[in-house]
Amino acid sequence: MRVLGVDGGSAIAGWGVVTLMGNKFVHEDSGAILTNKKDVIEMRLKILYEQMMNLIKVNKPDVLAVESLFFFRNKTTIVPVSQARGVILLAGAMNDLPVFSYSPLQVKQAVTGYGKADKSQVQYMVKRLLGLHEIPKPDDVADALAVAICHLQASQLNKMLLKI
Amino acid sequence: MRVLGVDGGSAIAGWGVVTLMGNKFVHEDSGAILTNKKDVIEMRLKILYEQMMNLIKVNKPDVLAVESLFFFRNKTTIVPVSQARGVILLAGAMNDLPVFSYSPLQVKQAVTGYGKADKSQVQYMVKRLLGLHEIPKPDDVADALAVAICHLQASQLNKMLLKI
Repeated sequence: MRVLGVDGGSAIAGWGVVTLMGNKFVHEDSGAILTNKKDVIEMRLKILYEQMMNLIKVNKPDVLAVESLFFFRNKTTIVPVSQARGVILLAGAMNDLPVFSYSPLQVKQAVTGYGKADKSQVQYMVKRLLGLHEIPKPDDVADALAVAICHLQASQLNKMLLKI
Repeated sequence: MRVLGVDGGSAIAGWGVVTLMGNKFVHEDSGAILTNKKDVIEMRLKILYEQMMNLIKVNKPDVLAVESLFFFRNKTTIVPVSQARGVILLAGAMNDLPVFSYSPLQVKQAVTGYGKADKSQVQYMVKRLLGLHEIPKPDDVADALAVAICHLQASQLNKMLLKI
């Protein structure tokens, strides 16, 4: 299973494709979609959409994994971040990808074993679990890879539970 | 100028196309895009996007007018409403439509002359300004027509100011 994790913001969206080989996570590809703050919002959404469509075409993921959003966090950015998220989910739906959404707590728990882990712990574990030489940058890329890992773990757990 | 006004929610998005003939507003077309609450959110965004793309193709508007969103209103629905708005703005950008955003206060002021007008006053004035026999239903359609009227008024005002 090829999982595309996306951590979408209004100015930058990190993405990462992760697979599972045996019990090991494999980093297939990752990057960031950047939009220009000087552009109007609809133009930035268009660039985000077109790049999402392109990277799905190139990387051929089986599922899309994203973080869930809560209105009480990041109050000032909730509208632009949600708008970007709508476009990211749309790109998944246009390619018939099932979409899975995980809370920040679930992602931290999956990657570090601790739901209240801080950002640097998550980044360190992403690097380690994927056998990377460096922590992926910018932070949004590490976050996107963390969501992909979270989905693979959840899927593995589901499989195990089905076998019991 | 053909203005497409859209009032987008997560379950329903009202739309209306309004033009100006002399000093009179003309109702060209209007309707509502409905999505099924039982469908997953990405599927509903896909339906919204496809219907938006289709109605732009059919109605050939020159601009897209929408209401601006504020995080402190409708806290519980801000994420799904913003996600839908992202997809609506994207449909505009994919068709190279300039997008104009107006606050609820601006819309009420434009339609009723009073920024604190209530919903029924706005609906009544939309019906009257467009010479309709009935108030457009559901409410989202009347709201979408109100945003379109607001943009036409703002454009007329700009033209007048340029002439002075």
